[in-house]
Formats: sequence, C-alpha cells, structure tokens
Amino acid sequence: MNLREPNDLTLVEKASLTSGSSTWQTTAIGGRVRAVTLTDGPHGIRRQDPAAGDALGLGRSLPATCFPPAVALGSSWDPELARRVGAALAREASALGADVVLGPGVNIKRSPLCGRNFEYFSEDPLVSGVMGAAVVTGIQSSGLGACVKHFAVNNQETDRMRVSADVDEQTLREIYLPAFERIVREAAPYAVMSAYNKINGVYASENRWLLTEVLREEWGFDGLVVSDWGAVNDRVAALAAGLDLEMPPTGTDERIVAAVRAGHLEESAVTAAAERVIRLGHRVEGARRFDGWDVDAHHELCREAARAGTVLLKNDGDLLPLDPAASQRIAVIGEFARTPRYQGHGSSHVVPTRLDTPWDALRAAAGPGTTLSFAPGFTLDGAPDAALVAEAVAATAQADTALVFLGLPAAAESEGFDRTTLELSADQIALLRAVSAACSRVAVVLANGGVVTVARWQDAVPAILEGWLPGQAAGSALADLIFGLHSPGGRLTETIPLSLADTPAHLHFPGQDGHVVYGEGRYVGYRHYDTLDVPVAYPFGHGLSYTRFSYTDLDVTSTGDNAWTVRATVTNTGGRFAHEVVQLYVAFAEETPSRPRHELRGFARAGLEPGESRRISFELTGRDVARWSPSRHGWRIDPGRFTVEVGASSRDIRLRAEVSTPGDGLVDELGPMSTLGEWLDHPVGARVLGERIQRMAGLSALSAGDSMLLALARGVPLAKFATFGIGVTPEVVAELVAEARSAPPSKAP
Amino acid sequence: MNLREPNDLTLVEKASLTSGSSTWQTTAIGGRVRAVTLTDGPHGIRRQDPAAGDALGLGRSLPATCFPPAVALGSSWDPELARRVGAALAREASALGADVVLGPGVNIKRSPLCGRNFEYFSEDPLVSGVMGAAVVTGIQSSGLGACVKHFAVNNQETDRMRVSADVDEQTLREIYLPAFERIVREAAPYAVMSAYNKINGVYASENRWLLTEVLREEWGFDGLVVSDWGAVNDRVAALAAGLDLEMPPTGTDERIVAAVRAGHLEESAVTAAAERVIRLGHRVEGARRFDGWDVDAHHELCREAARAGTVLLKNDGDLLPLDPAASQRIAVIGEFARTPRYQGHGSSHVVPTRLDTPWDALRAAAGPGTTLSFAPGFTLDGAPDAALVAEAVAATAQADTALVFLGLPAAAESEGFDRTTLELSADQIALLRAVSAACSRVAVVLANGGVVTVARWQDAVPAILEGWLPGQAAGSALADLIFGLHSPGGRLTETIPLSLADTPAHLHFPGQDGHVVYGEGRYVGYRHYDTLDVPVAYPFGHGLSYTRFSYTDLDVTSTGDNAWTVRATVTNTGGRFAHEVVQLYVAFAEETPSRPRHELRGFARAGLEPGESRRISFELTGRDVARWSPSRHGWRIDPGRFTVEVGASSRDIRLRAEVSTPGDGLVDELGPMSTLGEWLDHPVGARVLGERIQRMAGLSALSAGDSMLLALARGVPLAKFATFGIGVTPEVVAELVAEARSAPPSKAP
Repeated sequence: MNLREPNDLTLVEKASLTSGSSTWQTTAIGGRVRAVTLTDGPHGIRRQDPAAGDALGLGRSLPATCFPPAVALGSSWDPELARRVGAALAREASALGADVVLGPGVNIKRSPLCGRNFEYFSEDPLVSGVMGAAVVTGIQSSGLGACVKHFAVNNQETDRMRVSADVDEQTLREIYLPAFERIVREAAPYAVMSAYNKINGVYASENRWLLTEVLREEWGFDGLVVSDWGAVNDRVAALAAGLDLEMPPTGTDERIVAAVRAGHLEESAVTAAAERVIRLGHRVEGARRFDGWDVDAHHELCREAARAGTVLLKNDGDLLPLDPAASQRIAVIGEFARTPRYQGHGSSHVVPTRLDTPWDALRAAAGPGTTLSFAPGFTLDGAPDAALVAEAVAATAQADTALVFLGLPAAAESEGFDRTTLELSADQIALLRAVSAACSRVAVVLANGGVVTVARWQDAVPAILEGWLPGQAAGSALADLIFGLHSPGGRLTETIPLSLADTPAHLHFPGQDGHVVYGEGRYVGYRHYDTLDVPVAYPFGHGLSYTRFSYTDLDVTSTGDNAWTVRATVTNTGGRFAHEVVQLYVAFAEETPSRPRHELRGFARAGLEPGESRRISFELTGRDVARWSPSRHGWRIDPGRFTVEVGASSRDIRLRAEVSTPGDGLVDELGPMSTLGEWLDHPVGARVLGERIQRMAGLSALSAGDSMLLALARGVPLAKFATFGIGVTPEVVAELVAEARSAPPSKAP
Repeated sequence: MNLREPNDLTLVEKASLTSGSSTWQTTAIGGRVRAVTLTDGPHGIRRQDPAAGDALGLGRSLPATCFPPAVALGSSWDPELARRVGAALAREASALGADVVLGPGVNIKRSPLCGRNFEYFSEDPLVSGVMGAAVVTGIQSSGLGACVKHFAVNNQETDRMRVSADVDEQTLREIYLPAFERIVREAAPYAVMSAYNKINGVYASENRWLLTEVLREEWGFDGLVVSDWGAVNDRVAALAAGLDLEMPPTGTDERIVAAVRAGHLEESAVTAAAERVIRLGHRVEGARRFDGWDVDAHHELCREAARAGTVLLKNDGDLLPLDPAASQRIAVIGEFARTPRYQGHGSSHVVPTRLDTPWDALRAAAGPGTTLSFAPGFTLDGAPDAALVAEAVAATAQADTALVFLGLPAAAESEGFDRTTLELSADQIALLRAVSAACSRVAVVLANGGVVTVARWQDAVPAILEGWLPGQAAGSALADLIFGLHSPGGRLTETIPLSLADTPAHLHFPGQDGHVVYGEGRYVGYRHYDTLDVPVAYPFGHGLSYTRFSYTDLDVTSTGDNAWTVRATVTNTGGRFAHEVVQLYVAFAEETPSRPRHELRGFARAGLEPGESRRISFELTGRDVARWSPSRHGWRIDPGRFTVEVGASSRDIRLRAEVSTPGDGLVDELGPMSTLGEWLDHPVGARVLGERIQRMAGLSALSAGDSMLLALARGVPLAKFATFGIGVTPEVVAELVAEARSAPPSKAP
C-alpha cells in the first residue's frame, strides 16, 4: 500500500523524508513510502555498486553506455536526437535499478575555462533549453524521472561550494535562468537540482526567491527540488526556501523537527517537502521497467550522436572526406587516436560498455588501397619527446594525408577545477608544426570538452574536425566522417575565441575571496563578440559539412499581437546528403548598446539530399523581442523596429527582414518621480502637463526656453521641481499625478 | 552670542537646522545660530543674486573668475597649482558673501560620455584624490569651507536623480571611494555633498553605510553632510542615515519632529545633525574675510593653470611652437578661435570677469613679421556650410601654418545629460580634411570637456593640442603655448580611446530602467585598456612638451613593514624649460587577471631647465599593494612579487624594479567551510591535518591518490567530506578546527 497523503505521517516521519537514507536513495517508511533511487548520468548511467557507493566517485560503477557528453550532443542542435539519447539513458537507468537520472546539466558556458563545460550544452540559453528539454522528455518518456541541474548560476568549478555568483537580475532572467524556465514549462521534469554556489550572497539551496518564487510560483514547477550532493548548509533554511530533499543525508533530520517544535519553521513546509518526495515515488512507480538494453543499439546511437555533434571547423580544398576506396597512404598521428579522450572526469564519469578507438576504426573502415600508419607523437603527460615527434614526422613524410589527433589530456579538465588556459599544450603544437611541415594535407581532429583556441596553429593546416568528447563510439563515428560515410553534423554552440583575453568574463573569472562578479552581464558568448565586433576564430553557430546550402525566400508574417511566423527556404546545392542548422536571430541596431546586438531565437536542423529544398518555419513571440525590465520586475517589449536574421552562424547571416512591434502596450504609470521628459513623452502626461504648463512660470520657461536647459530639465523628476523655486509646488505635482492617472487611456503596467 | 551646544535648542529648532532657509543659506535661529551661505563653484564662484536665486541656474550670477574646470586643472597633475586655485576661489567666495564653496567634484570618469566629466579630474582615483585634496586645502586655507562632491558613485547624468549605480564592494573601495577617502583623511573638508543617485538600490542621501559607517566611522569625517540640491527623497531616512542638511529646503522639517515624537527617529540623530550645522557656522565664522580680489592676478592664475593643463598630444616634426619673431603667415581656422569654448554648462556655469579669445591673443602675441588671417570654417550649430569651408581653405592655402580650433559646441555636453558619441561633428572633420589638404603644417587645437576621439582624423595633422575647457584665460594661455613662451604642461588624466566601443563601460552605460550595472568593475580607464592590451589613441598619463626627458637610476628601498621609498632621476635632455610628470605604477603580472595590470600609486610634477636633473622620491605603503577583500571586508595584501614602474605614461614605462612583499601577515582562520586545499596550504592547518590524516581512510586516499581526484577534492570544504562517506565525521571536522585554531602561530584576521 502506498500513501497518498503525508497527513498520515508524523512530523518525525515527514522530516525523515526530507533527506535520503543513503547516498543514492530517498528514505522509505515501512511499507508505506517507497524509496526512490537516483543515479548520476547526464550522458550515461553511473550506477554505483550500493556497497561501494560514495558521491566522490571513489567507488567503481556498473558498465553503461557512455553517450556523448552535452558538449557534443548539444553541437548537434538536434532535439530529436537528444530525446532518443534521453530515452536510452532511462532504459539503462531502469535496467540498473534507478528511478531518477541526475541530468541534464544546462548551465550556461559563461567562460570557456569552466572545467565542467563538457557537461553543458551552450553559451546560449535557447540551445541549452531546447536540448535540455529534449533530454528530459526522452528520459521521462518511459516514466522515469529527470533531474535538471545545477539550478542555478553554477558556471565555474573554482570554489563552487562557497562562491557567491553576483549577478544582476536582468542577466539572470535573460541568460542564466531561461534554459531552466523552458525545461520546466515545456518538459515538466520530475526534479530540479539546486546548485552548490550562492547567488548574490544566498546559497542556491537556501534561496527562496529562486526555489519558490521563481521556480514554483512563476514557472509552475510541481516537482521535487533536491540538493546537489552536499549542497545543503542549513537544513532549516533550505527547507523553508523550498528545497525538499537533502542528498546525501547528513543525519540531521532532528533539526527539522526541532525547528518546527521551536516555532522557527512552519510544519506546512515540512509537509509540502514530504509530499513532493512521496509524489516523486508515485511518479516513478508507474514507469516502464527494463531488465536490460540492446548494447549494440545503444552503441550505435552513440555513434550517430557523435557524428551529429562533430563540427567541421575548416576544410580548405575539401581535404575531407577521404575516399576509403582510394589508393593512399594515411599517417594517423597522436596518442588520442589510440587512447581516445571521449568523456570527462568527475561525477559524470561512466564505465563504458565498449570503446571504439579511432585507430581501430580507421583501419576497419579503410579500403584495401589505403595504407595506414600510426605514430603517437606525444605523451598524455605533456612532456616533450623528440623521438616521438621524429617518428611522427617520418610517418607523415611517407603519407599522402596526415590525420593528427590532438586535444586536452584528461588531467587538463574536470569537474572540480577550472582551466587556466585555452591553448593546446606546447608539445602538441610543436608536433603539429613538425608534421605540417612534412605534409601539406593535414587534418587535425580535436578531442576536448572545453573550447581550445586554434589561432596559433590553424593556418598551418587545411582541415580541422572538432570532435569534442564524443562518447564511447568516438573512433567509429570519426572514421565515418573522415571517410565520408556521413557528413559532420555539428555546429558550434559556443564561440571559439582568438584568445583568452577576448573572452567576455576574462576580467571577472573565477573571482576571488568568495565572490565572482558577473560583470559582463548579458554579454556572454556571441552576445559579447558580436556586439563589440571582436574578431573570433569561429563564430557561434558555425560548422561546415561536405555539401553547401543556399538560403532564399525569407518571409515574415504577423500572426497576432507580437506574434510572427518566419519562413525561409534552405536548399542543398552541393553533391552529398547533409544536415544544415538554420538559425534565426533577432537583432537590434543601437549606437549605444542597451542589449546584445542579436540573439538566437530559433533553430532547425534539416537533413537534405543534393538539390533538395525545405521550407523552414519559425514562430516568434513577444518574449522573443522582450527584455527584462528591472524596474518593472517583468518582461518589457519596447515599441520599435528589429531585424529578423536567418543564417548559418551568428556571423553568416544570409537573409534579413525588418519588422516592427508596437511594444507590449503597457504604459508606465506616471508618478511624482517621473521625469519631466517622461511626462512630455507620455501619451496622457503630455496632455495633462500641457494644459497646466501655462500656469507654471518656471516649467513653461523651461519647456519654451533654450534647448540646453530643457535637455537638462528633462532628466529631473517632476517632484524635484518643487525644490527649485520655479512655481511647481508639491500640491501641483500631486494634482498632475492624479489627473494623469485618472485620464484614459493607459493600461496599467 | 553664538551657541556652542544644540542642547540649548528645542526639537523644533534643531529640526529647522537640518534644512536650509533658502536655496543657498542654512537656517539661522534668532541671534543664536548664524546662517551659512553656500555657493556653487568647483572652478568659479556662481554667487546668485539672492533675489533671483534658484538651483537650476535660471537666474544670473555675479561676475567671478572662471578658472579652468577640473578637466583642465586636473591635467596639470599639479596639486600646488590646485591649492592656489582653491585659495583664489575662497577669496572670491568670501568677497561675494559666501562661506562654503560647493566643490571640488571628484567623481571618477567612468565613461567618457558622462556629460559632467568636465567637472571631474580623472579616470584614476589617485589623481582625483590628490587634486581634490589640494583644492580643498586651498579653499579652506582662509577658513572658508569646501564641500567635496558628489558622494558617491555619481558617474553619469542620465537619470541621475533616480538611477541605482549597482557596484560591487571591491570596485567601490578600489575605484569610486578612494578619492573621497583621501580628501577626508588628508584635507578634512568642512562638508561632503551626497549624490542624487542610488548606490545598490539605496539613495546616497539615505545610505547609512556610505554616510555614517564609511565616511564618519571608518574615515573619521567630522564635518557636515549636505544633500546635492534636491537629492533628499525621505527626510527621516536621510537624517537617520547621516545626512545633516537638506538643500534647498522643502519645508518639511515638521516631518523630522513628527518622526521623533512618533518614536521613528532618535532625537540624538537630529541633535547630531543640528550640531554639525552649528559647528559649520562656527568654523566659517573664523574665516578671513575679503571684500574683493585682484581681478588681474586671478586672471593671470587662470592663464597659468590653463597652460599647465593643456596637453600636447602630438607634435610631429616639432611643428609647435611657432616662432613669434618669424616671418610667417598663419591661418587661424575655426569658430572656437573667435568664440572660445572655455567652460561647461550647468550649475558650475560662471559669469567670467573677462574672456581672452584665441584670435585676439594670437594677434597680440605675434611679432611684426607674422601675418594672421581668420576664417570660422564652421558654425556652432553643426550645419554643414560649404562657403565657410571654402573660405577656410582659401585662407589656409595662402598660409605657412594653419591653427585649426575644433571641439565640442556647448550644446554637445552639459550637466544634466550624457553624450552619445565621442566623435567631433561631421562638419568639423570635413573642414579639417579640407584644410589639411591645403596645407601640410596643421595644428589642431581642441576645446572639449569630455574626451573626443581623434582616430579618424589624426593622421591628417602633425600636431594636436588638447586644451580641454581652459577657463576665461583660454586665448592668452593657448597663445603662450603656440608661440612657445611656455611649454604645454598637461598630461592625460583619462585615456583617449580609439572608439566608443573600446571603452570599458560601453556595454553598461548609462543603463536603463533605473539601474546602471558597473559591470566593468575595477577595470576603469587604463586599468581596462592596459590589462586587456586594447590599443588606444593616447594612453593615460601621456603628454608631450617642447623638450625631452630621460629617466635613470631607479632605486627601491624597503623602509619598514610593507613600506618602500622609490627614487628615480629625471633629466631635461632637451633645449627648453618644461615640466615633466613622473608617474609611479605598481604592477602585477597575472595570466588570469584578478586585478588591474598596473595602477598609479604616485606622481610628481617637476619643472626642469635644460640639462637639469632632479631626484624624485615616492613613498609606497602597504595600501598601495593591497586589494579590497570582499570576504575580509577589509584590505588584504597578498604575499608575492610586484613591479614598481616609473614612466611618462601608463604605456611609456621607462624604469622597472621587482619588489616583493611578505603580505600583511594575516592568516585567515580555518573553519569547517575552509576547503581541503586551504587546509593543506595553511601553515597550521597542514600540520594539524597531516597528523590526523592517517586515521582518515578517505582523506588519506584522496591526498595520496591520483592527482585529478586530489585536484577535485582540494576545492571541497572540509565539512562537506562528512557527507561523502569517506570517514570524515562532523566530530572529526570540529576537532580539527579546534586544533587548528588553538595552535600557534597565526594572527587573527
């Protein structure tokens, strides 16, 4: 028998439900409340042997498919693919005895230095939100639960358990919260995980504004809020703020009980939390259960996802793909070809069911006319090794083409610490220079979770394939692309800058003394580079394929109040099937920027045969042209013109149309502290003031007088004129305000 | 008879003292408390006819010397000169019946767009503080009072009466407050003026942290806090926060009385404010009184100050100075030569005692062999006028040298609104292009209060003289420099950027919806450009003269605990007497910046004859190498190396020495939330933990185990290990903390 109502429980029982019974399980109460099992797993199930379970990952976990981490999956811009990966994750979780998958992670890649960026999708909230929602939908399609994390503003590893992310509200609303908002509204995850860090001085886990006002009251979240593992510092404060479940347990449930008994905590808060824990149990109870999965099929899905997320940055002279049937000699250079870097370190680390190495996969895929040779070229510890370089150069010199596998060794990036450089290691760059001097046909294949800069060496090579961390099918997927069985499907979800100093958070990351100031505000990623026209190596949205696409026939139709349908036709004008990612931006041109130059508001992935066209359609809403107003504490649509841009990257806009919005129709109410300029510009205020102005010598002189003085006076709140001895008394101001507020027409704000 | 103690006054009387009796006067009480008269005047006395007095400046004021506004005076980097100007201001104020001069203004030039930048000294707090302190000392040398303004963070005109400047504490402490702090500590101004704006949501006038905790309790300010004119919004809140005097009066003293009677306000707060108003009266009572001043001498001081503040930006081929005795034809081009722009608009506007125009002064200074012609070239309204351009070109074509007077018309900048561009107007640039095509010897003479960019046109001219707004002796001072009677003495107190988009606050200025986020943080001015290596037109500190200087023999001597004497020798290696401004910076080289690349920590102006050398000496203190620590809520000196740089601009460093500091000796106390890394790096913590670590299987494994895991674990607070099931219990943590805290040696923070 299962309990429907926590009213049947005692306070002590209810309090016991607000923390787990073990590292991975919620508390069961007799036969009345079942335990729920949670498991790490944004891109693969890390189901620990319960006996060896610990949150730091010292224990080993059971084998599971290691899907491409979010950095690669996100680069597909393919929510349907993400949904399928999510469904596969749920099946494996179910088979491994878990009820809730701790993922996806949808934090914004604020700085490319963040050590955990490989677990996140993008520098852009739309990409993060759409891809995250798709993973949630996939996981929950079988009835298991997803847990979106890390809520919120967890954008660095440095001091992550204490640091306060100091961010203004507009930036929170426009950049750091929208992915969570979209997922909550569209995919209804069973759970949200509160982050370790503080936000503006208050721990996310104790942040009532975040966990209750925004998440539940505004967005309508009806699921469970669970702490990141160890993120609770004050049980009572956390529970009062809206955190339901502390994980792992700290054996402090009696504090909850004591706080209620002492009158410091409403029992209703404990009841609500217990109710949500119980409800989670009910939800997962109805899930389809699996006792295994098709390991080959899941591996194949990995391979497909890796292909879809690999970004062809550069391909001069169409060096790629190589013809597997050709008579050729290929030098495969780089330790990563033999020892692939395919996943990241930390709590997301998966013991894979199998692993395809590039070297094996290339040999398997090559035709009989192809001769392959391998030289490691460097060691993973970064120590220079002249003999390895010489061996690699020798191998290259005898080859027609060199494939050079470079990237970040595992020790360079991880959950738990941030990087300090964007450069590849010096030994790898030296190797590349030596190899490219020996052979003009060099393709670099990169393996890295966080962005690496290519500025220092990219001119030396005609082709670069950014594979990110591709999951356990790394080798076979890359071989598919290199030999042209498929076209690389990925587009950049984060800008590749020329240098670290160009990155928007450079002066503010990772902070010190317990604070990190988000000084760059909303200007994250391309919002920074494009607004300031900063040169970049490769822009957001960029990615080549083995074909070409044309864009035509942009059409924008108004479909209602601040609603538009945007249509454009994309055509494969090349010779191979490939996917294009059509991107829609909304742009505002301003001399003095008050918002990013443009922002992604839609994208669509389309697979097209040679010569095939598709009409792509996007819906734009008022929210897409709104900005957050700190004074209104809400969204605001300014009347005016904007540009709809459709293209292949943030810097490859192919079609443009100018559109106008009447604004949101909300006219701010005038008050005594509204400025003279606001009165004069206000539809009602101008009339009211105009009628009275003749009687006010001073104001009349101002508005009729010299333009400099008027310009100065426009910034003065009406009430302030009362102090300037020019005949505007407080009584007159009060009368004007009353008149303006009573006069039609003006919607209340 | 004058009152010594406000205890003799009733509550109503005391309340009456907390606002003025008129726009410019404090309240008198019978024969017992005298009224104090205040007057506008950062660079000249704007004493209004009491009958016509109003704060908006509609009434005319009595003639007074218009000294160079702070933009020009500050560019002299000459505190002794500033002191003399201050003394002259006080003499005129006294003669015009005033007791307190409302100045200097020492707000930081955060953005070059700020319409009131002409009233401020610098983008750098040291220059602002030293120059401001000198003006205060000068004003108060006769016993009159100075009133430092606008306290604080009033860095824009847009929405200045409502906007919240949202700034982190470290930025406040390192950038926006130090000038005020220095002035309060070193020059003890009688009064401080609270700003219009809010700081982090709280009006400066109602900001107890600012007006009481920082200003009085930390800095020891014992004077009066007066509101900017109209800056009070809530009388009771303001008084409770530490604001003593509302100006101008709003007739709301009864609210103070009512609040006390209702128990909402301590009477002691009213008493303290009244006491400070009375004390101000006593202070100015003892002032020397003057019934006039030497108009010629003050004009001459103007002229000297204008010469000292004019910056020779560029002088290819030593085009300047012109020889007044030569046989030559000079075309004087530009309306500003006839109608000089010499002061700014707004409350600082002075009716000058006289006015020297460049055109008159050049003719007066030229020898008999010099033929001068004039053509206005453009109109002040910016409308293109081809006839004027043609006339100017014709005049130039017949000349050996053209002096082209360009700049910002009065309508382009003012108190009350901000600029939106840094460019000269299109008509002026077109004129310059036409003129420079007709003559290769062109010197541009600029008149502008805020910075203008030169990037678009400077290659077309060999010489640029930046005169700023030079005050009423504009013309004679410029003629002195052009004909070489004196060498230009100014150095840039603010960077001239290449473009608006390069400026640090570009993405954040001036905010909207009532908030301006200071996202650039401490990276203001050269702190931004130099940290990010952004190219600029002319760097902070730059300025040429008619001679050359060499720098030699840098010597840094430790003189105590975090105290050093820095000495360097500067030598005039050219052929004319001139002043050099020797600048001392303290630099920290960091790959990932946690502070500005270098910061000005000293400067000295030296007038040297040809061949003359001078040994310059600076004292460096711990504060000069400290940074504000948000966690400590105080200054922190990190141990390590830094570089002492001595040079002629922030980008013309001539001498360098590396120095090290042991830090401030304060070791942060370890606690349960100190991370494993902090424990291991702590002198005591490492020992205490080391002794126990063998007994803790998990921690032992971590610290001995693989480096990746250790790197991850170093960021985890010790208390958090209790939740990770690796044998570190809360009791163990508590014991470790107790041991670490009891063990010697460690100073308390």
